[in-house]
Amino acid sequence: MKIYDHPALPNPKRVRIALAEKGLADKVEFVFVDVLKGEHRLPDFAAKNPSQLVPVLELDDGTCISECTPIIDYLDQLDGNPTLTGRTPKERAMIGMAQRRMERELLDAVVDYFHNATPGLGSDLETQQNKAWGETRRDIAVAAMHALDRDLGHRPYVAGDTFSMADITAFAGLYCLGFAKMDVPSELKNLVAWHERVAARPAVVAAMQ
Amino acid sequence: MKIYDHPALPNPKRVRIALAEKGLADKVEFVFVDVLKGEHRLPDFAAKNPSQLVPVLELDDGTCISECTPIIDYLDQLDGNPTLTGRTPKERAMIGMAQRRMERELLDAVVDYFHNATPGLGSDLETQQNKAWGETRRDIAVAAMHALDRDLGHRPYVAGDTFSMADITAFAGLYCLGFAKMDVPSELKNLVAWHERVAARPAVVAAMQ
Repeated sequence: MKIYDHPALPNPKRVRIALAEKGLADKVEFVFVDVLKGEHRLPDFAAKNPSQLVPVLELDDGTCISECTPIIDYLDQLDGNPTLTGRTPKERAMIGMAQRRMERELLDAVVDYFHNATPGLGSDLETQQNKAWGETRRDIAVAAMHALDRDLGHRPYVAGDTFSMADITAFAGLYCLGFAKMDVPSELKNLVAWHERVAARPAVVAAMQ
Repeated sequence: MKIYDHPALPNPKRVRIALAEKGLADKVEFVFVDVLKGEHRLPDFAAKNPSQLVPVLELDDGTCISECTPIIDYLDQLDGNPTLTGRTPKERAMIGMAQRRMERELLDAVVDYFHNATPGLGSDLETQQNKAWGETRRDIAVAAMHALDRDLGHRPYVAGDTFSMADITAFAGLYCLGFAKMDVPSELKNLVAWHERVAARPAVVAAMQ
């Protein structure tokens, strides 16, 4: 298997954390895509993912899978023990719901704010900024952090009792805060404690290097 | 099981199509949520889904599942034959990837255009319109229809050889065009033919009534 990505970006980090959690990091070959130079828009990469987004998982038969959720879902099922995405239909649903909420309301919201209402990647790359919309998205991200803090007051992980794909998405969301010059509000004690706990997981330490 | 929804809206349609495809439509009780009157923002509903979006699936034990993908994933697994979401890890990945792409680039894009750059649901409800962003999203939806038309030139359904959750999402995207006063471009012959074929499926006919 190959992973086409840029290791510093948040969505690649999600897949790298999943790979490390599953003990698969040394089973894949990483291929660097220089997103900051626009390499993801060139025909070679667009043939692998028409949406022109990293990461992409390429299977040994040449099949290309993009979008983080299906990539992680696929990797999680390889050992027959899908700890990250859920082992029963109900567990899958709870994790899938929390994951999608964290994606839309936290991770993607911070990314949208970064690209639209901050200097982002610079004026050469940020040609379609929309400040008002970016600021709306920032407010959604802040509200999501407050809601997550409340949830973490009565469960240890984002989707329930165990670490899952939803934690990975939320962790990537907080990782993006740095790019956007935002912080986890220090009064959100549950969120701060969860963040420290997740950041200390050996797989997360390895993937974030 | 109960489904809280508003039957005319696109995301509820997705779940209703899935229920009909799986022969489950008469196994659930539908509870009407008057979204146009803001009922989804009231505490009773927000307790079921803090994101304040329909639909919500409530299981008999009171567990509430929101977000269409995990709802459909759950329903699809009840009979042990997940035809809509994939029966192997690779099938799951291909369907999950196509579904997410259709969601972001077609369905959600048309919805965003409708709410931001058309009169939408009227000035009482559309208090945060952003015309420039809405128009960007319209252009993304139009590009997605062209891309899907090309894809449907070499496969019968959105994610491959069989009807899946990805077709449901794309169909809901085209359903939204009416609200936004957009059309399927008539030159997109493959897309037009696929749309007619999907619209004629008995389950889709039943769910769209």
